[in-house]
Amino acid sequence: MAEKLTSIARDQALETLSDWRVLDDRDAIAKSFKFKTFNQAFGFMTHCALKAEKMDHHPEWFNVYNKVEVTLSTHDAGGLTALDTELAAFMDKAAARFG
Amino acid sequence: MAEKLTSIARDQALETLSDWRVLDDRDAIAKSFKFKTFNQAFGFMTHCALKAEKMDHHPEWFNVYNKVEVTLSTHDAGGLTALDTELAAFMDKAAARFG
Repeated sequence: MAEKLTSIARDQALETLSDWRVLDDRDAIAKSFKFKTFNQAFGFMTHCALKAEKMDHHPEWFNVYNKVEVTLSTHDAGGLTALDTELAAFMDKAAARFG
Repeated sequence: MAEKLTSIARDQALETLSDWRVLDDRDAIAKSFKFKTFNQAFGFMTHCALKAEKMDHHPEWFNVYNKVEVTLSTHDAGGLTALDTELAAFMDKAAARFG
């Protein structure tokens, strides 16, 4: 099972990510992605969904039209793990391709 | 442009839908769908996304693992229109296929 990141490991991981914010009320990171169209936004989601399924680690996400709001946390571990930062990095790259 | 449903038309449409609730704070309908797996939940979303894109009418939806929470309203019309009840009916049928 994935273990919660130490404070140092977390800070290091967050530095490599683009514009993810740490939530105040739970040990999770979040980011709002904005695309030009629903087609791009859902294309991004589909790309990430296949990755998430492969990792067996799934996002919480909200979509309306061209916006996708993502929250990542590892429920089993009760907080942020390397699975979250890996998926976040994947999403950053994916967004650049669908933007 | 789609026009807001009359009160009678809305009640009639809601009777044909399965478990959609009318929101208190805005003129919209919502439903929580639950599947067995993320695979099924996202399969359902993909199926509905293609329909939404074809209709040029898009849902607001939140997904975490096997759950999909959908809100439908027609922003341009400022409330519920036939586009929403059509998409809701499509989602009901789709959910039965992915459940």
